[in-house]
Amino acid sequence: MKILWNDQILEDSEVAIDFEDRGYQFGDGIYEVIRIYDGCMYMEKEHLDRLWVSAEKIRMVLPFTREELSQRLHRLVKEVGLANARIYFQVTRGVAKPRLHDFPDPKEVTPVLTADVQAVTRPAAKQNIGIRAGFVEDKRWLHCDIKSISLLGNLLALDEAKQKGYEEAVLVRDGFVTEASASNLWMVKNDILYTHPDGNLVLPGIAKIKIREIAKAFGLEVREEAFTREALLAADECFKTSSVAEIMPIVEIDDQKIGEGMPGKLTKKLLNAYIEAIQLTVQSHLNEK
Amino acid sequence: MKILWNDQILEDSEVAIDFEDRGYQFGDGIYEVIRIYDGCMYMEKEHLDRLWVSAEKIRMVLPFTREELSQRLHRLVKEVGLANARIYFQVTRGVAKPRLHDFPDPKEVTPVLTADVQAVTRPAAKQNIGIRAGFVEDKRWLHCDIKSISLLGNLLALDEAKQKGYEEAVLVRDGFVTEASASNLWMVKNDILYTHPDGNLVLPGIAKIKIREIAKAFGLEVREEAFTREALLAADECFKTSSVAEIMPIVEIDDQKIGEGMPGKLTKKLLNAYIEAIQLTVQSHLNEK
Repeated sequence: MKILWNDQILEDSEVAIDFEDRGYQFGDGIYEVIRIYDGCMYMEKEHLDRLWVSAEKIRMVLPFTREELSQRLHRLVKEVGLANARIYFQVTRGVAKPRLHDFPDPKEVTPVLTADVQAVTRPAAKQNIGIRAGFVEDKRWLHCDIKSISLLGNLLALDEAKQKGYEEAVLVRDGFVTEASASNLWMVKNDILYTHPDGNLVLPGIAKIKIREIAKAFGLEVREEAFTREALLAADECFKTSSVAEIMPIVEIDDQKIGEGMPGKLTKKLLNAYIEAIQLTVQSHLNEK
Repeated sequence: MKILWNDQILEDSEVAIDFEDRGYQFGDGIYEVIRIYDGCMYMEKEHLDRLWVSAEKIRMVLPFTREELSQRLHRLVKEVGLANARIYFQVTRGVAKPRLHDFPDPKEVTPVLTADVQAVTRPAAKQNIGIRAGFVEDKRWLHCDIKSISLLGNLLALDEAKQKGYEEAVLVRDGFVTEASASNLWMVKNDILYTHPDGNLVLPGIAKIKIREIAKAFGLEVREEAFTREALLAADECFKTSSVAEIMPIVEIDDQKIGEGMPGKLTKKLLNAYIEAIQLTVQSHLNEK
């Protein structure tokens, strides 16, 4: 498997991470996942924008320009040659010795970039029937807007839901729904879309940006405001959004049906439009080539 | 530098961490730091106890027994040969491909152990004059009882204090003081010791165990209850405790003096007793040899 390691493309067996990389000892790093459709990196600009925002929030000085990073990612995608895939990339603060909690002087440490490409297909079967989720208390930190690799809180939330037999966690903090374990969460009530506002309690999702656009084009009202667990259980529809899951209906939470207990009308309409938007983007990319 | 990597002792340049180690991509791991005095690992049993508790809390099945881990750590300490030092060791969940948030089946993944020994001496100069701290909002997760390597929340808290010119952060959640950025926090008021109770908001410190013993021997009352920022500012003394810092006086917070603005009477008494307890333990270890 080919891996991007800083500015080199190597076989995975050739990549050797230093045990004193701060990513390994502190979770001191950030990441992004971009979906690739027909060889085209979808919403790349938005993902790179967010990476730079995350870097700034943890005071990490990235050792490449946007153009350089973009070129490296494209080189890897081309070399791997998978048409439908996702590219995962992370940047850690780098190797600092000895281990100290203090952020090292940016002049004395070089962040480490790694990226890999894996085949991914649209989860169409699941999108057709929806998934079953369980409520889990949101015990993550209060910097959920930073897409960091310190992810154990997210893993524990997902695991808690899985241990109870559910496929996903719907996180609740102080009675209000925040997001799913690694996706934004939405509900539909009386043809109005609701999702938690951006801020420090949720990740500003890239798929979310696209949903806003689509909703606007349809003339659908979007209210970005926190809603309670009870409001969600009484909703007409529920879905989660992420670059890889796209729009995924959630049809049951804690064994209670949401609406009819199947993917909702608006959810399906949004998903169709989401897929159409991808196809248009991919087509225009291919035409440019 | 010699490193313990699973059951081998290698030069650091020979240790190669897989970029798909879940410690590197998710902060999915746990750690401990044990202080070494005169070649003797201090309170080793308590640190190993806590490692096993952390492992259980994240459902990690450790691939060695306590005896095996202890033997490996002792082997490294002996090979490195530093009399006064600390041993850092961490265990990540191991390499699972492809990257998925789900915890892999413990039968299909082998946790990765790494450890290194670094020279450390008692921070006596700082203990004599104390340190200056600043209040920082505690934005960490609600699993602070797990000593995990997903530490970015702790790093950001410390950095926030350092950016304001302080040496340490005193974390405050909902108005109540929890701990310092990586140590337990104590105050003294009217000869009574106060510290936040164990639970999900603080790490159950190993040094804390020893302070409890010493306080008991002195007939000092210890109240493990949350106290406010205002109560702390009005306290007679303040200090933090950790295996490496031992007992470190905090003499100012947000530029306001605590008590007289110098290490307090009881703080010094506890530190002397803490050092005496170490000497007794080390002496009895040496006599056994």
